Amino acid sequence: MSLGEFELISKYFLKASGNPDLIVGNGDDAAIIHSRGNLAVAVDTLVAGVHFPEKADAALIARRALRVNLSDMAAMGAQPRWFTLSLTIPSPDPAWLERFSRGLFVEAEQFNCHLIGGDTTKGPLNIAIQMLGEIAQDQPGLTRAGASPGDLLVVTGTIGDAGAALGQDLCRGLGQSSETDYLFERYWLPEPRVEFAFRCRHLIRAALDISDGLLADAGHICRQSGVDARIHLDALPLSRQVMDFWGAESALRAITAGDDYELCMAISSECWEDVQKIARELDIPICILGEFSEQAGRQPSVTVLDSHGQPVDVASTGYNHF
Amino acid sequence: MSLGEFELISKYFLKASGNPDLIVGNGDDAAIIHSRGNLAVAVDTLVAGVHFPEKADAALIARRALRVNLSDMAAMGAQPRWFTLSLTIPSPDPAWLERFSRGLFVEAEQFNCHLIGGDTTKGPLNIAIQMLGEIAQDQPGLTRAGASPGDLLVVTGTIGDAGAALGQDLCRGLGQSSETDYLFERYWLPEPRVEFAFRCRHLIRAALDISDGLLADAGHICRQSGVDARIHLDALPLSRQVMDFWGAESALRAITAGDDYELCMAISSECWEDVQKIARELDIPICILGEFSEQAGRQPSVTVLDSHGQPVDVASTGYNHF
Repeated sequence: MSLGEFELISKYFLKASGNPDLIVGNGDDAAIIHSRGNLAVAVDTLVAGVHFPEKADAALIARRALRVNLSDMAAMGAQPRWFTLSLTIPSPDPAWLERFSRGLFVEAEQFNCHLIGGDTTKGPLNIAIQMLGEIAQDQPGLTRAGASPGDLLVVTGTIGDAGAALGQDLCRGLGQSSETDYLFERYWLPEPRVEFAFRCRHLIRAALDISDGLLADAGHICRQSGVDARIHLDALPLSRQVMDFWGAESALRAITAGDDYELCMAISSECWEDVQKIARELDIPICILGEFSEQAGRQPSVTVLDSHGQPVDVASTGYNHF
Repeated sequence: MSLGEFELISKYFLKASGNPDLIVGNGDDAAIIHSRGNLAVAVDTLVAGVHFPEKADAALIARRALRVNLSDMAAMGAQPRWFTLSLTIPSPDPAWLERFSRGLFVEAEQFNCHLIGGDTTKGPLNIAIQMLGEIAQDQPGLTRAGASPGDLLVVTGTIGDAGAALGQDLCRGLGQSSETDYLFERYWLPEPRVEFAFRCRHLIRAALDISDGLLADAGHICRQSGVDARIHLDALPLSRQVMDFWGAESALRAITAGDDYELCMAISSECWEDVQKIARELDIPICILGEFSEQAGRQPSVTVLDSHGQPVDVASTGYNHF
């Protein structure tokens, strides 16, 4: 079976969006959107064989690709609105495209954002999604640069689940056992904390989503804010499944594991109670891991402390793409 | 030599943009832009071995990648403002990255648009650029859907040059001979008609840029406008170099050749003089190739006529990506 590009797009990717701010949709040289103020723009690319196994379920690939980008919107305190898809595929396999597009639209609907355009090309499997989100007019957006000495270092969810899943077969389907499914789902379906971040946008000083590993990502906040940070290993929120999987090494493994897409934030202690309240309302676990402090050395740095308050030497500093 | 992702980005892709509407630039989870109204959003992907030879000059690859996206902005009557880059490369080769980023910024500066974010990943060479452009508040943007019976079918520039270049060695450098350089440049450096389209935005009824071949692209306007079109082969604007290269077959080859990125437009005869005036001021060749008419059959169609006014059967209907 051979599908032309136009047929492929119209069969799998053209959907009426019902979005009143979409003036020109999919199918022209560009989409035209009506935007009311400040927009967050992010792009994340997933490459087969690097970011996911090529033989994995196409629906899960699509769902993860969109969620990873939604997580960038959360990290900016933005509300996801529109996205474009650059899809490079080796061949137009109808079964694969059917599952991929179904997965994509499931997430788009759940997170109320709209596919407004894209490009479909032939080549080694590569998925780049560009997401556009609206920033509330009352706030300039959350960056990595606002942490101050004394702020609490806070994370959502549990850390290390996705990293532990990398030790499993990522190509199998769901429904094996609730134990292994938990980690599997945490890898494929990270939870973008969009609503939480949007509602907390006045209460958070700095934020990012954890993709390179908590230690490396906390370092990004430190560098861009010009502060140091301390992380208490004992405070790390670990799932039971991660502890079963990694045993005594769990905390050290989790702190350098990537792909969690939980938020890492700087929050002043005065705002902590309000943030907790919103997290409770949304049923999102949050946890204080440490605190930011004045930059002591020439470079901002993150210190990891063990249960005795002693610094731990963590050799690895996060995932390197090359 | 091994470059980490962060080092790579900061070395080759972080540039102060001096753009007052860029609130958060490269280096956070997302960029934040200030937009004043309607935005055009387009994405085009170039895959090594499919859209360009892998061994080609990285500067030319980057320049073409950006120009192809700028051409989409022209086709919408939008002013290019910002873009993101999703760059997948097999390895972080400093010489390649140096040339690529230099080529990219040369074009960004020339067309006054700003790199605001991106993602750099490891894998088979793949370049996706997402462009954001502003639509003037006095006009909703140019689509493919506005052509009316009686409108003139007009193109900018010459047709078929890029297609003829595909018969050459696209990996060689410039400066071989002025004859072969002309076609080579037309392939690698298509001319986005941004200023022309923006200034003519009230005078053009429908537009697109020619990427799939004039015949196929005129068909897109017909389908989306619900009209037929006639194209007079004799009227086709052909360069001397194309005529030397393809001889007697030039017009037929040119009409199905892709990659020209010239504009194909529907213009009412009352506006033709004003459009010509703007084209003259900008020193852009434009040419009437035919006209649009009432849809006669069940489907909109494009008829190609020879010098005797007889229909020509053109078998191929444009470039198929798969």
